[in-house]
Amino acid sequence: MDLTPQQKQEIKELRAARFETRRATVAALEEILYKPMPVLDHGFVRVIDYMGDDAAIVQAARVSYGKGTKKVSDDTGLINYLLRHRHTTPFEMCEIKYHVKVPIFIARQWIRHRTANVNEYSARYSVLDREFYIPSVEQLAMQSKQNHQGRGDVLEGDEAQRVLDLLKEDATRNYDHYVEMLNEDPDGNVIDEGRGGLARELARMNLTLNAYTQWYWKIDLHNLLHFLSLRSDAHAQYEIRVYADAMLETVERWVPIAHKAFLQYRVGGVTLSAAGLETVKNMLANKPVSQEASKMSNREWRELMATLGIEE
Amino acid sequence: MDLTPQQKQEIKELRAARFETRRATVAALEEILYKPMPVLDHGFVRVIDYMGDDAAIVQAARVSYGKGTKKVSDDTGLINYLLRHRHTTPFEMCEIKYHVKVPIFIARQWIRHRTANVNEYSARYSVLDREFYIPSVEQLAMQSKQNHQGRGDVLEGDEAQRVLDLLKEDATRNYDHYVEMLNEDPDGNVIDEGRGGLARELARMNLTLNAYTQWYWKIDLHNLLHFLSLRSDAHAQYEIRVYADAMLETVERWVPIAHKAFLQYRVGGVTLSAAGLETVKNMLANKPVSQEASKMSNREWRELMATLGIEE
Amino acid sequence: MDLTPQQKQEIKELRAARFETRRATVAALEEILYKPMPVLDHGFVRVIDYMGDDAAIVQAARVSYGKGTKKVSDDTGLINYLLRHRHTTPFEMCEIKYHVKVPIFIARQWIRHRTANVNEYSARYSVLDREFYIPSVEQLAMQSKQNHQGRGDVLEGDEAQRVLDLLKEDATRNYDHYVEMLNEDPDGNVIDEGRGGLARELARMNLTLNAYTQWYWKIDLHNLLHFLSLRSDAHAQYEIRVYADAMLETVERWVPIAHKAFLQYRVGGVTLSAAGLETVKNMLANKPVSQEASKMSNREWRELMATLGIEE
Amino acid sequence: MDLTPQQKQEIKELRAARFETRRATVAALEEILYKPMPVLDHGFVRVIDYMGDDAAIVQAARVSYGKGTKKVSDDTGLINYLLRHRHTTPFEMCEIKYHVKVPIFIARQWIRHRTANVNEYSARYSVLDREFYIPSVEQLAMQSKQNHQGRGDVLEGDEAQRVLDLLKEDATRNYDHYVEMLNEDPDGNVIDEGRGGLARELARMNLTLNAYTQWYWKIDLHNLLHFLSLRSDAHAQYEIRVYADAMLETVERWVPIAHKAFLQYRVGGVTLSAAGLETVKNMLANKPVSQEASKMSNREWRELMATLGIEE
Repeated sequence: MDLTPQQKQEIKELRAARFETRRATVAALEEILYKPMPVLDHGFVRVIDYMGDDAAIVQAARVSYGKGTKKVSDDTGLINYLLRHRHTTPFEMCEIKYHVKVPIFIARQWIRHRTANVNEYSARYSVLDREFYIPSVEQLAMQSKQNHQGRGDVLEGDEAQRVLDLLKEDATRNYDHYVEMLNEDPDGNVIDEGRGGLARELARMNLTLNAYTQWYWKIDLHNLLHFLSLRSDAHAQYEIRVYADAMLETVERWVPIAHKAFLQYRVGGVTLSAAGLETVKNMLANKPVSQEASKMSNREWRELMATLGIEE
Repeated sequence: MDLTPQQKQEIKELRAARFETRRATVAALEEILYKPMPVLDHGFVRVIDYMGDDAAIVQAARVSYGKGTKKVSDDTGLINYLLRHRHTTPFEMCEIKYHVKVPIFIARQWIRHRTANVNEYSARYSVLDREFYIPSVEQLAMQSKQNHQGRGDVLEGDEAQRVLDLLKEDATRNYDHYVEMLNEDPDGNVIDEGRGGLARELARMNLTLNAYTQWYWKIDLHNLLHFLSLRSDAHAQYEIRVYADAMLETVERWVPIAHKAFLQYRVGGVTLSAAGLETVKNMLANKPVSQEASKMSNREWRELMATLGIEE
Repeated sequence: MDLTPQQKQEIKELRAARFETRRATVAALEEILYKPMPVLDHGFVRVIDYMGDDAAIVQAARVSYGKGTKKVSDDTGLINYLLRHRHTTPFEMCEIKYHVKVPIFIARQWIRHRTANVNEYSARYSVLDREFYIPSVEQLAMQSKQNHQGRGDVLEGDEAQRVLDLLKEDATRNYDHYVEMLNEDPDGNVIDEGRGGLARELARMNLTLNAYTQWYWKIDLHNLLHFLSLRSDAHAQYEIRVYADAMLETVERWVPIAHKAFLQYRVGGVTLSAAGLETVKNMLANKPVSQEASKMSNREWRELMATLGIEE
Repeated sequence: MDLTPQQKQEIKELRAARFETRRATVAALEEILYKPMPVLDHGFVRVIDYMGDDAAIVQAARVSYGKGTKKVSDDTGLINYLLRHRHTTPFEMCEIKYHVKVPIFIARQWIRHRTANVNEYSARYSVLDREFYIPSVEQLAMQSKQNHQGRGDVLEGDEAQRVLDLLKEDATRNYDHYVEMLNEDPDGNVIDEGRGGLARELARMNLTLNAYTQWYWKIDLHNLLHFLSLRSDAHAQYEIRVYADAMLETVERWVPIAHKAFLQYRVGGVTLSAAGLETVKNMLANKPVSQEASKMSNREWRELMATLGIEE
């Protein structure tokens, strides 16, 4: 993660300032406000602003369900109840804003979540920095293994080195050609007065998809949790999962009760189909079960047995 | 506007508390935080929370447009530029949360704006209060005049009194029957142990559309301004316009630069069609113009002349 | 359900017409196109238009997942897989448009789903019809029982009759006063030239919440299924569940494979929390389990046992 | 635009089929259904499905505004009125689905419109084709001129050739390295059994931003018109404008009345600020005007004069 001296100074000043407010305030989140959390080789996530806390979820639920919520004795019980029964609107009453630096190919996955507000750095108007994501050797090995199961082709040694060399060389060369075509440096100064420059909006097409972009990304807690449940999942690509993990830490600081409920009912929870539930009931009643009888597909049956921790 | 002693105490406590924060903070809005602004006879609007300020809009725009925005010398110029050219995403970086009490028939108009987060008091789970909106005699007259142009039937005197009597009697009777059917008071206590009660989810259907409901309503600044441009407009119904006006005051406190730009470019601005622009150009060039030549409809032509302040 | 002769004629004409198209077409849904399905005492649901079919879901998934989807042999398998793993975007590629007539207090629940397009009949501009929902005696009994568990106050006999009388009288009287205040009939003709009329936008406030409104409601299949999973659920209010049930029938005609998968993985499926899954695993391994050890609340434990069909 | 023989065959079959439907059907749009319209060097837009027509807009408006719309004599008048007064919901009742092939750097602009449904070809699961966008010499010249006003650096001759050479070489080399790293061809066959391959989800990062991607993109007419008003605008980048232009042609076929109104009230229309309107009024009244008196900025004044066709 490379911040310019100017950015460092800016963050220092923002963190030094203190204001008096009547708003709900969360000390544990204030601690890290504005502070970049490093992700991947040059990326980061930092919290820029937030609205609400665990109590704001409870307050919204009590407005909605009124006297009905009196039965639930405490905030934890109510938040658990809301998350368990997918009563999601009270979680929409909290909002958070992040500043994120992320490789373009990951930004393209990320942006598919349409429920956030986004302001992205535009390569149409500005020159991008000379930074690209290069995976670690471990990642090359792990991801090649995961994605080509059974082909025994873990990428290691010379083969891995060859990949890293290609990624570095191609990204660097393409960036250098990008600057040459632009005929201007990142600050917008003309390099060679003797020749013309390509428009920024066109020159950017020469960049590789591991170039870093950045954006402000603002989202409510309900939609954030939905994003995190998908992106912190074991099936998510490693390069987006590490961002989700960093954000999950900020959620823990921000709304610790909701965070705990989220782990209990979403991350650690499972969904059974009608046939899956029937199978479990039969097993508990010591009735014979089988894939054939369940009418589940091979794949579903395997998934169910894995979920139940049963080895076949 | 009738708050219970308990609500008054709650607001007093919330307003008395002070926290230290690193977040962008707006003193002028903090002044009125949590405080209900009375609207209509029993309604109110109050700001519960907010995120961001004028500077947050500027900051988001500078991330998006990067070095390109350096040309615009100051924040006011940049915010004006953004609003003028409908670059709306930076305004989405600010968020505000209101608590609103509003008659149901107005709530039904309001909820048509789908871009907000809402938690409404549910008459399925709780008993509504004995409060309904009764318009003033002036409103009866004004709205009957506006809506039946040329029919000369302004509603005044005995006729107006008759209307008010009907509204009051019907709303009161229906509420009393609602309580009778429920067989419980607003606190959920059974009234007559000797008989059954109708389910709340059914009993509520006997209420009139001027009964008051309430909700938490959270929205970003871009969508709020869109809502306000429609609902503070002269063509909007009076009963929603007064809410929009109250909220416009909160916007002025919150983001004074954006508020001013909004008045200049939205509220005070007009849109000309291609034919309308052609007509204006011809008029400025002292060429003859006419409805026929413009190919505009009667109505459009009248609207254009009214916009230009030309009497025909 | 009461249609005017004009509406009946219109539907007859629409149903008689036939066009040639290259678009995906579903014969089973065409059969009922435009035809109202009666719901409650005066309401209806009818399909006005649709886009896509089961094959359109498959096609979109194959674009997204490309060669990866080749492994799944057939359409049914793929649709099952998508729904099981909450890969929801391919379902967004189908769209349906309904015309619905529904009591206002139910319309207010319905509209909380923000992901649809809506055009509602406006009582600001037009006079509403003299129609209100009056529940059946069975519903009074059933809903009072469900909602006041343990209070033994099923609403029957004279008490039920008293409720029905009140609902009818109040709705009728309020409607008649509404017309009196308007001083115009539903066709917009002035009733008494000798006196003024109240603006429609105000007069409507005297109506009761069981008055019928109507709207066009357009939604994609993914969001429709989400709506139906909430509203056809046993916990949903009866008066909205009957609409959901009618719509579920149209889904079965329209996309039979997705409909079946929906029943299997959503309607008939259950979600277990981390603690719930742990408990099930222990039970399957014949280890002792208890609420205390599980750290679940009383309520959660009861819900889990009920899900598993275990009597305590 | 390069279609595989298989794709060509598929389109041929889809276009040959005919079904009978009761749905609103638009002959002029059916004519081009499924047919790719070439855009840029390898891209295309094709209509896959649609719902509704001009009459569906009118029908929805008449439901909403009820008897109030009777005054407007015909469909054209009503659609004009709706678009002029930004009554946008009736336009949401029409829906269209496109299949689009577009360079990634343009897809990234496009996806910022969040109101559509999207299924994009995923390079995480499939291998991308060997196709990249290379601009024409004319575009290099025109866009460099537009974007560096006054710097006299139009990109021509050898300099332009150098740019094209770099773009081609870099895109090709990076693609070839992508395939080498994958160690598989686009059909998923291993190239060299003797070595491992990099996971697709990682290898894609070596591609350049001018590589082509494709997606299904479904949107309602209101949001489509909003997209087109921004992207067919003279300030939009050429590479997205050509897509907007192709789609505008499909809109003309689909909803000719709405299309004409769109040109009249959006594309050809202008917005004046409060100060701009005041200035125009003064000019029409032959009162002296000046930038100083208007309190407009230099830039705004220039924009206003340009709008009014007044040379200074």
